[in-house]
Amino acid sequence: MTTKVLPQPDRAEIRVETVLQALGEPVRLTIVRALSDAPAGICCGDLELPVTASTRAHHLKMLREAGVISTHTDGTRRISLLRRDDLEDLYPGLLTGVLSAKQ
Amino acid sequence: MTTKVLPQPDRAEIRVETVLQALGEPVRLTIVRALSDAPAGICCGDLELPVTASTRAHHLKMLREAGVISTHTDGTRRISLLRRDDLEDLYPGLLTGVLSAKQ
Repeated sequence: MTTKVLPQPDRAEIRVETVLQALGEPVRLTIVRALSDAPAGICCGDLELPVTASTRAHHLKMLREAGVISTHTDGTRRISLLRRDDLEDLYPGLLTGVLSAKQ
Repeated sequence: MTTKVLPQPDRAEIRVETVLQALGEPVRLTIVRALSDAPAGICCGDLELPVTASTRAHHLKMLREAGVISTHTDGTRRISLLRRDDLEDLYPGLLTGVLSAKQ
């Protein structure tokens, strides 16, 4: 079974404005919180979100293209992971601060 | 001479999504970087920005209403300060991470 990583920026291409814009939306923040509790990643379809499948796909794409998450295929499934190491290296503390926010 | 603090959210009213949206824009990030180097605040007119006065005022208002900055009058001048303590208390590390981003 082949695995494919969906297009994403390299660490050096990640821009802080884009990361902040990606994080600054309630549904996307819910996704990031869920992924932060799942080091092995989450199948996109398993994310419980109050939106349609196409809206969910849109938000996941925005997070991926901003460099916040990484998504790869696993058979017919798509698994997403938080790019915690990349974000911590680029912006030490940012993700921790965001995740510590009261909901 | 009286001083007036312009309307701003209390610490408990600040929302992380709104803060992230406020920070996720290049001009506003430039303002935040400038204020982070000026603990005594900066007169809004002294900020060197590649935008018109009205656009600058709009960005300052967004930052203020999000809870990122505080603005008060000083005679005819408006002085803005970064709400570093409030942000650090609410989202420890977030501001440091954002400010550590390469420009």
